[in-house]
Amino acid sequence: MNFQSKFLTRSRSLQSLLCVGLDPDYHKLPEIVKRSPEPLFHFCREIIDATAPYAVAYKPNIAFFEVFGSSGILQFEKMIGHLKNNHPHIPIVADIKRGDLDNTARQYARYYFGDLQVDSLTLSPYMGLDSLRPFLEYQDHLVFWLCLTSNPDAAQFQKKRFSETGRTLYEEVAYVSKSVSPLNLGFVVGATNPGELDALRRQNPDRIFLIPGFGAQGARLEDLLPVCGPLSLINSSRGIHFASNDADFASRAGQEAEKIHRQMQAQFNNL
Amino acid sequence: MNFQSKFLTRSRSLQSLLCVGLDPDYHKLPEIVKRSPEPLFHFCREIIDATAPYAVAYKPNIAFFEVFGSSGILQFEKMIGHLKNNHPHIPIVADIKRGDLDNTARQYARYYFGDLQVDSLTLSPYMGLDSLRPFLEYQDHLVFWLCLTSNPDAAQFQKKRFSETGRTLYEEVAYVSKSVSPLNLGFVVGATNPGELDALRRQNPDRIFLIPGFGAQGARLEDLLPVCGPLSLINSSRGIHFASNDADFASRAGQEAEKIHRQMQAQFNNL
Repeated sequence: MNFQSKFLTRSRSLQSLLCVGLDPDYHKLPEIVKRSPEPLFHFCREIIDATAPYAVAYKPNIAFFEVFGSSGILQFEKMIGHLKNNHPHIPIVADIKRGDLDNTARQYARYYFGDLQVDSLTLSPYMGLDSLRPFLEYQDHLVFWLCLTSNPDAAQFQKKRFSETGRTLYEEVAYVSKSVSPLNLGFVVGATNPGELDALRRQNPDRIFLIPGFGAQGARLEDLLPVCGPLSLINSSRGIHFASNDADFASRAGQEAEKIHRQMQAQFNNL
Repeated sequence: MNFQSKFLTRSRSLQSLLCVGLDPDYHKLPEIVKRSPEPLFHFCREIIDATAPYAVAYKPNIAFFEVFGSSGILQFEKMIGHLKNNHPHIPIVADIKRGDLDNTARQYARYYFGDLQVDSLTLSPYMGLDSLRPFLEYQDHLVFWLCLTSNPDAAQFQKKRFSETGRTLYEEVAYVSKSVSPLNLGFVVGATNPGELDALRRQNPDRIFLIPGFGAQGARLEDLLPVCGPLSLINSSRGIHFASNDADFASRAGQEAEKIHRQMQAQFNNL
């Protein structure tokens, strides 16, 4: 099943757009988890099992694993295995933000899509469509290109306008993408400015948006839901999995996820 | 010692700008190496020891390790350990092309600069200066920002001009960088167009350039040397380490590196 079908099946069944981010920052883990031999895997597994009833998708960010080198990546692989084995109907977005060319890009595609079989991943568009091609050979999988990010310095490049085309860089990224099927390419669209999200959605009605920046990063759900449309994943990471750092961390994460889930459900038919 | 001092000491002592890239594509490794329990580490270690007399720097690309997941990263770590232990005077550029924000970017900085102690690494600038800051806390280390890449689709974004500033995206990346010391930030500048390299060098005389695209990727040394200036690392990967895929692969790599080394030496005083 391709990414879009898996996402839509899950989203319609839950009537939600909630993507649960997994950013297991070691220094913020509950003490009880830090003492585990594999704290990142331990933490993510418990968060996953507690939030699975409400997760349309999971988005683990590899940086929090890569910081521990090979032992961190081993825990990343175990977490992906846990998701594939126990929650195979929930799509996985590996948040890796890589970006390279040709045979080098092919290595990343082979590992994440070919071996780990994650459904989707994030890439940076700086090098252009060249950098995307090796990933498109995996037809059932989807790449989210960084388009508009939610940080203040996004304005330095992404929001500047090209004289030749009249488009900003992030609009140009969206424009160049028209040659790639929406089944294989979606966008990361930061949630800090609902007006920009609204415009980008109108110009790209068929493409899946991955929207970070909600919750701990500042955007309000009531501003996003009226404009994002049904082909969106709205991500919350810390707001859910760091709701508590005591022994009740998993059940509290489940409660937070349920709370957002209910808000989304109430609006789902109006999307 | 900071990156620039380490680089300049090495470059002046060898009278060369040669950066030896390490792209150990498993499928292209000599058969004798493929049978090793740790083929990537085995290959790189032999290439390193054979080319060390001629290497101003080494640039391993992590994608070729990451494709094997945790076991690949373990070999990457062993290779870095081999370089630090046996060739501590040769700076290392980890070609990772990451790019993320805040606490996420901090994880990458901690692993590569804090733990592995590589001297330098590559990042994508798409998100702006925000994405650089956690790396700048490691004052003796240097980041190479992707500026102008050597692939055809670099034209899609990097070479388009902003109406507000009159600069192309890659010139804007260079311009925004003026707030960051050349001791901490250099540029990746693709070598396919010596005219663009020349202009960028004139505008940024104090910044270190990492120049890929020489050799297997097409650019000629005699076009680059007159314009790149002494603060440059000119990279060759496959042209050196895949010179042979028989049992003589390491000695042939050494011969190829020596050949380029001699060409650079002959021009060094004219840079």
